Amino acid sequence: MPIKRLCIIGLGLIGGSVAMAARAAGICQQIDALDCDEPAIAYALEHGIIDTQASGLEELVSADTLVVIATPVSLIADMVAKLWHQAQSKGLSSFYITDVGSVKRSAIELVRAEIGLSPSGFIPAHPIAGSEKNGVEHAQVDLLKNKKVILTPTDESAGEAVDLVTEFWQAMGAKTEQMSALLHDEIYAATSHLPHILSFAYVQQMHEMNRRCPVFDNVGSGFRDFTRIAASEPAVWSDILLSNKDVILPLIEDNIEHLKHITSLISTGNNTALIDYLAVVRDIRQQINGK
Amino acid sequence: MPIKRLCIIGLGLIGGSVAMAARAAGICQQIDALDCDEPAIAYALEHGIIDTQASGLEELVSADTLVVIATPVSLIADMVAKLWHQAQSKGLSSFYITDVGSVKRSAIELVRAEIGLSPSGFIPAHPIAGSEKNGVEHAQVDLLKNKKVILTPTDESAGEAVDLVTEFWQAMGAKTEQMSALLHDEIYAATSHLPHILSFAYVQQMHEMNRRCPVFDNVGSGFRDFTRIAASEPAVWSDILLSNKDVILPLIEDNIEHLKHITSLISTGNNTALIDYLAVVRDIRQQINGK
Repeated sequence: MPIKRLCIIGLGLIGGSVAMAARAAGICQQIDALDCDEPAIAYALEHGIIDTQASGLEELVSADTLVVIATPVSLIADMVAKLWHQAQSKGLSSFYITDVGSVKRSAIELVRAEIGLSPSGFIPAHPIAGSEKNGVEHAQVDLLKNKKVILTPTDESAGEAVDLVTEFWQAMGAKTEQMSALLHDEIYAATSHLPHILSFAYVQQMHEMNRRCPVFDNVGSGFRDFTRIAASEPAVWSDILLSNKDVILPLIEDNIEHLKHITSLISTGNNTALIDYLAVVRDIRQQINGK
Repeated sequence: MPIKRLCIIGLGLIGGSVAMAARAAGICQQIDALDCDEPAIAYALEHGIIDTQASGLEELVSADTLVVIATPVSLIADMVAKLWHQAQSKGLSSFYITDVGSVKRSAIELVRAEIGLSPSGFIPAHPIAGSEKNGVEHAQVDLLKNKKVILTPTDESAGEAVDLVTEFWQAMGAKTEQMSALLHDEIYAATSHLPHILSFAYVQQMHEMNRRCPVFDNVGSGFRDFTRIAASEPAVWSDILLSNKDVILPLIEDNIEHLKHITSLISTGNNTALIDYLAVVRDIRQQINGK
């Protein structure tokens, strides 16, 4: 890997796991981090996850450096713009940026709005890994192992930067895949953002119902599986939902139409039609299990 | 246990597991089963899960016998009525019936409509255990161990029958709890039936979306957890949804209102309000985890 230094901005579950995996893979000489969460930095220093704490963005900008932005989605664009300004003023060419945001168009569009372009060394990425447990203390060296990382290079992305960032994520044990930022945002709105919303709304509904009926004393494993994602980090998810809302809102509307359809199957009491519907759903879900 | 013979009607995952657990607990001398699924019977005979196959309902009706009806919900009432007629004609008093239905009022009401009463030896039950895997070949001796079994005795249920059936389920390692059939149906509509419906409708939506966008190639662990219950058995679930529809339909309507609420939070883009909402949901879900 032609980088000497890895810098992590945002030392949480993903940022910490990336640092640990980079260390284990031996792909850089130094790992630094920037985070205003002092206990997270202290934990990472103590456990050898990072080498030093950076005191500001400008410290992160040096030659042969890759910065991984692992902050909530809404902060990415501003970080990219500031890093680019610093790199320009220092005349650096071997300076690269990637991120771990769950939404890809918004950061690229905001960067373009701010500096008129997307930097050639900026290769947006989304590792499909995580947990409802947050924080660097839950970081794992193998969190990305055999996981998919979607890369959404822009028209301005330099080929050598794409190669370098691809190689970086592969060094973590991840399988990389390229697609457009829009296709990414459509797919993950459907497979991740929408189920989170359904789980959030359902838990809120049960919370209100629990005031008059002991629902939470009577939950089974189905309930637990179904609502696990409702415990996700609020600030992270508010950002995701707001950043991708143009794609998400029509999906919620469409979901309501599907709920109305199953409502009509139940209310008309047509057993055969309902069984047919449920059999299609079961077969689809079982096919996905096999993947 | 003052029973000599256990009879299982419907030899699937639950029926098979009940037979295995009864055998292991040594609470009866003989275990017989009735099922029109010949391979299921053959499997259970071959693996020593049951002793004999009954050729009809009348064969199951003998003194000191407990019949466990483990069929889909819609068949329970007719079985209970027929068993009661047989027991009446044979003049049996020590004959007991329980079931494993996920909906409790419908069978009781249908039995009353058919024979004018709910038999004194009939103690409706619902073991809160199961799996999206069906069939006697997935039966487990410890499926009910430490699981809850809700008993919903009727006004006509005899005290000694309640005691006997309670003792039976406890002998499987289960924890029994009594409540009214209506409260049961309200609670499980909320904690089980509704999440199944949400998962069914979501998988159907994704199936349609997958025709124009590769959603199923890009699913993560959150998606898998969220949709696991969508692979449940269609005939069983059609029965459950139709048997409990008066309670379920208002819950779906209420769920749609909650989806509209989160839609409004997202579309107005109020980050603080959305974070507050998600924080409440996360806290509730984490409290449930601790239970």
